[in-house]
Amino acid sequence: MIDFRPVIHIIGWIATMIGVLLALPTALDITVGNPDWKPFLASSLLSVFIGVLLLLSTMRHEPLTLDLRQAFLVTILGWITVCILGAIPMLGVQIGFVDALFEAVSGITTTGATILTGLDSLPPGLLLWRALLQWIGGVGVIAMATLMLPMLRVGGMQLFKIESSDKSSEKVTNTLTTMWMLMLIYLILTTACGVLYYAFGMNGFDAATHAMATLSTGGFSTHDASFGYFNDLRLEWVATFFMFCGALPFLLYIKSVQGYPKALFADSQVRVFFFALVLIILAVSVWQAETRDISIQEALADTAFNITSVVTTTGFATEDYTQWGYGASGLFLVLMFMGGCTGSTSGSIKIYRYQILHIIVRAHMKRLISPHRVVPLSYNGKAVSEEVAFSVLAFFAVFIGTIAVVTVGLSFMGLDIVTAYSAAVTAITNVGPGLGDVIGPAGNFATLTDPAKVLLTVTMLAGRLEILALLVAFDRDFWRY
Amino acid sequence: MIDFRPVIHIIGWIATMIGVLLALPTALDITVGNPDWKPFLASSLLSVFIGVLLLLSTMRHEPLTLDLRQAFLVTILGWITVCILGAIPMLGVQIGFVDALFEAVSGITTTGATILTGLDSLPPGLLLWRALLQWIGGVGVIAMATLMLPMLRVGGMQLFKIESSDKSSEKVTNTLTTMWMLMLIYLILTTACGVLYYAFGMNGFDAATHAMATLSTGGFSTHDASFGYFNDLRLEWVATFFMFCGALPFLLYIKSVQGYPKALFADSQVRVFFFALVLIILAVSVWQAETRDISIQEALADTAFNITSVVTTTGFATEDYTQWGYGASGLFLVLMFMGGCTGSTSGSIKIYRYQILHIIVRAHMKRLISPHRVVPLSYNGKAVSEEVAFSVLAFFAVFIGTIAVVTVGLSFMGLDIVTAYSAAVTAITNVGPGLGDVIGPAGNFATLTDPAKVLLTVTMLAGRLEILALLVAFDRDFWRY
Repeated sequence: MIDFRPVIHIIGWIATMIGVLLALPTALDITVGNPDWKPFLASSLLSVFIGVLLLLSTMRHEPLTLDLRQAFLVTILGWITVCILGAIPMLGVQIGFVDALFEAVSGITTTGATILTGLDSLPPGLLLWRALLQWIGGVGVIAMATLMLPMLRVGGMQLFKIESSDKSSEKVTNTLTTMWMLMLIYLILTTACGVLYYAFGMNGFDAATHAMATLSTGGFSTHDASFGYFNDLRLEWVATFFMFCGALPFLLYIKSVQGYPKALFADSQVRVFFFALVLIILAVSVWQAETRDISIQEALADTAFNITSVVTTTGFATEDYTQWGYGASGLFLVLMFMGGCTGSTSGSIKIYRYQILHIIVRAHMKRLISPHRVVPLSYNGKAVSEEVAFSVLAFFAVFIGTIAVVTVGLSFMGLDIVTAYSAAVTAITNVGPGLGDVIGPAGNFATLTDPAKVLLTVTMLAGRLEILALLVAFDRDFWRY
Repeated sequence: MIDFRPVIHIIGWIATMIGVLLALPTALDITVGNPDWKPFLASSLLSVFIGVLLLLSTMRHEPLTLDLRQAFLVTILGWITVCILGAIPMLGVQIGFVDALFEAVSGITTTGATILTGLDSLPPGLLLWRALLQWIGGVGVIAMATLMLPMLRVGGMQLFKIESSDKSSEKVTNTLTTMWMLMLIYLILTTACGVLYYAFGMNGFDAATHAMATLSTGGFSTHDASFGYFNDLRLEWVATFFMFCGALPFLLYIKSVQGYPKALFADSQVRVFFFALVLIILAVSVWQAETRDISIQEALADTAFNITSVVTTTGFATEDYTQWGYGASGLFLVLMFMGGCTGSTSGSIKIYRYQILHIIVRAHMKRLISPHRVVPLSYNGKAVSEEVAFSVLAFFAVFIGTIAVVTVGLSFMGLDIVTAYSAAVTAITNVGPGLGDVIGPAGNFATLTDPAKVLLTVTMLAGRLEILALLVAFDRDFWRY
């Protein structure tokens, strides 16, 4: 039997934290005199109440270490708790339960697909709450991908296990220290981004909410026109830079400030990510400058912004880039599969998995030619074990399989093939906008049917949990013995 | 250095054989008094001339055994030779070089995508040649997948290596015997199919050409309306049955007649293929009978025919099934990725690879839950070695990667996203029709630009060679030492 008590204890902490955070939109709505403070206050109290109840009921079971199944359960139930508690306050602002859940999950998973229209005239409390959901979702995934998933060995993440001492108590201290440092760096970067946004002309509220949505590579905006509302190339460059920062491995920031200033750029994943991104941006910029009637500066800024937005799985848009031509649609669709680095806030397949796939395919081809040759697999100076290779490949298979199933499901729910396929892809990769008139960068998920929204909600959550971390709970073996 | 002479010797045989086969459309066009017999005769003589020349120049180098690189070269150059020699006679019938090559490659790879319109009024010689191309392409891929690729260990095919004696001379005799038996069975099945087509109302010419396109899971028809032209449920059932036969492992037919009558149905791949197909057909039939105004018999026949056609990568159509609704489009798109069994004429990913993927993902999940558990991988009663697993996964990665690259390429050539993506998929899987108005089951590849046709031609060939068998030749290591 699994001992649920340490799991519940952590869920209690999470619920309490959500309750405390809900005080912020409550306070904001009270300040501006908006009646929405009531549902926010009620939700805040409810969350704190549930959280404290859970904490009290498991007080003697503070977890020092979790076993494997408990760790999986904390991961899964932690995210689900935040999703549900995050959706409750939205019920108070005239949207249905399915819509509220979709919006909350889209926020927390830093997807950024929205079912809300008329963002510009929505109460500030709600807009702040959407930004906060993305922000805590971002730090949540950094913590999960840095500290939890490597231990759980999901999708090849064991490659990024942090070496630590053997003493259990020291391990916990180290883990907590790392967590606090990650949060501090995340906070500093967000603040820097917000200050620059403000300096280049955003008002304080827009600067704060967009900074949160930028660093979390989330993509929720406070305007229907998304980033296009501001129409300022300087702001676009700031956003491009910080979206990129959000997609780097946060652990390497810590190493950088701890005396290895080159840690970031010496990392193989970061280098490949950076050069691939720059190469794509330059190529598309040249194409843009030639085919459209815009200056090279504008082409460069627009391209850099929108490509970085999709690749880092943020999902901001300055305009409907699918109108750039069929080539752009094809490219953006494929770029959704890219993703940033692991241990960042970005989703999708991520660079290191492509590097591992590349190593495996190369080795396979070498062995096709010379069967008896031993081809050692190594990545970033470390040997890639058979287990890591299988994890990455299993992830890849499950990822593609999920897209296929969701696409068929959505198309039977009445979505045309472009909408169905791109919705499946954008949900599992946590990007945000899809392709086509309905859910494209100029569109909105509002008009989808409830079953489609539910399916996409589950898909977003699965994507955020690297699918396998969610799937294990549906394995009979998980619950046996 | 690679000794090319044994390779050239085999290419000489292949060219001679093509020349001999070209006598058939020549004779047919002479019989019906069509002037097209001239280009066919010229091509025939040219092929024989080239073939004999190559044979004579390498007479003392009859290959008894090929080394690994020679075997790869024979595979690659053999297919390319047939493609080029097969395209030449078409140049005589008013289509350009790119179109001729596309049509020939589409035929030989048993894809069945066509750039020809007005099929019904084309000269019989050309129609016969298209059918013959598919037919020899079909037996070519059976021979390659049964005898060559397992030895070359491409994409996990080493699982299907035939146990044979160690004596080299005996091995060659055995291989040749197997090859003749495979061809005999292929011939018998094709004849049976043709006789039934004739019995149920096709004229002799249609029966012969469609039988060749059925067993080869090719899909070229002699009518623009494809199989819909005949409008006869009995013919549809015959086609469904023989497309299914074409997608089974032909080696198991040999085993069945050699005293293991249950060999076919005891095979894990065949069972999964059969049951998956039946399940999908039943589910879609029920949906069809409910949503459309047709009888259950018609729904069943239509569904069975069109689904089997796509899954076996044949590409016949009775009607534009993409008009059945968005659900059908999504389903047919995903079904293209399925494919039949290995060692058959069908293309795409194929059932056994999904079985291996499934085994790997299951094992990975079991190890996520219990890290120290040893999970043995076994398939069809045999252990799946690490090497096989990696081969399958490398194939899968390269397959998906190729689709991404071709999709982006086609979309930059001006194809809309549905056409670009479905063209990439239908070419690499060797199915035939794609989705959308242009290349859908009711459409035609004629209007695509030349660059798009060239890209798709290469993609079809890559698909037929399981990608990796083509890709190795582009590896520097292949040509070194």
